[in-house]
Amino acid sequence: MARWQPNARERLERAALALFVEHGYDATTVAEIADRAGLTRSTFFRYFTDKREVLFGGQDILAGLFADSIRAAAPSATTVECLAAALESVTVVFTPERHDVAPQRRAAIAANSELQERELLKRARLAAAIADALRARRADDTTAQLAAEMGVLAFSTAYARWAAPDNRQPFNEIARAALRDLQARATTLGTNTDVRT
Amino acid sequence: MARWQPNARERLERAALALFVEHGYDATTVAEIADRAGLTRSTFFRYFTDKREVLFGGQDILAGLFADSIRAAAPSATTVECLAAALESVTVVFTPERHDVAPQRRAAIAANSELQERELLKRARLAAAIADALRARRADDTTAQLAAEMGVLAFSTAYARWAAPDNRQPFNEIARAALRDLQARATTLGTNTDVRT
Repeated sequence: MARWQPNARERLERAALALFVEHGYDATTVAEIADRAGLTRSTFFRYFTDKREVLFGGQDILAGLFADSIRAAAPSATTVECLAAALESVTVVFTPERHDVAPQRRAAIAANSELQERELLKRARLAAAIADALRARRADDTTAQLAAEMGVLAFSTAYARWAAPDNRQPFNEIARAALRDLQARATTLGTNTDVRT
Repeated sequence: MARWQPNARERLERAALALFVEHGYDATTVAEIADRAGLTRSTFFRYFTDKREVLFGGQDILAGLFADSIRAAAPSATTVECLAAALESVTVVFTPERHDVAPQRRAAIAANSELQERELLKRARLAAAIADALRARRADDTTAQLAAEMGVLAFSTAYARWAAPDNRQPFNEIARAALRDLQARATTLGTNTDVRT
């Protein structure tokens, strides 16, 4: 069983999400996940540190892509252009396979308050990664923090739209529209009283 | 010991913060806190659910003040005017006594990763309270979320400045300036490349 297993990561992820939804996150063991996937516990631990990483392992990948793309943006890029580059860079993560499992992931997290907190912390970590990358480009601290919050808000809005079961639009198109929308609203907060979309 | 103890809450809070800094949050027991304050465990539990509430009990008060002040703002108030009212409303919390214990609170949280996560979650809860109150005024969801993030950022920036040991300026003045600053930056994110304050 030590040899390479085709699609082991995907099989483990699908098995884990199905079990989280069926039996609850807390009641699901790594042994059950491996068993459902037709693999061993040791194979599971080759891909994931623990069962929580099945749900949140993508956090470091997203944070890394955000930071790298902002650092790689042209020196003349504006703050919003940096955010656009960051959102564009994570499109690779949002594959059709990921779209298929998104509803289960959402249901598993929604059913567990500890996982909901973990999701909020993930959001804070992504904002910190964006803010750090903007500071490295010599953005002042206030601008870096504000832009990071706006970037994460564009990301989470775009993710929710992309993950909707009937959506077929690619992530980057949705994210570009979400960022444009937020930028427009940011300029009118001092004038808006009752703006409905 | 069942009768009212003068300043019991403040004495318990000061004792708790001192012990958290001296021995660490995890190593401090409620019995030790009560003992240091010259009170009993049962008096402690009349004011706090657990030792974590000593650090984060203010969260519900802040969230309630934010929500109430936004709901009470004039119907014609803009989104930014609602945020300004929210920040103004929490000034009552930031007394000279609170200023005195702020460095200890900060040190206790900085020394413990679980408490740092709790602080991030507090921030998320405050943002949710603001967003909900803005939605109740018929702000659209995107504007409500963006404004809530901006409000919490203004709040946390203002709190850090207010809590600085040498600060003597009242919270509301600092918060007003922080919000104005953020609003100005929000309008220029598409043009800024290297803005230093």
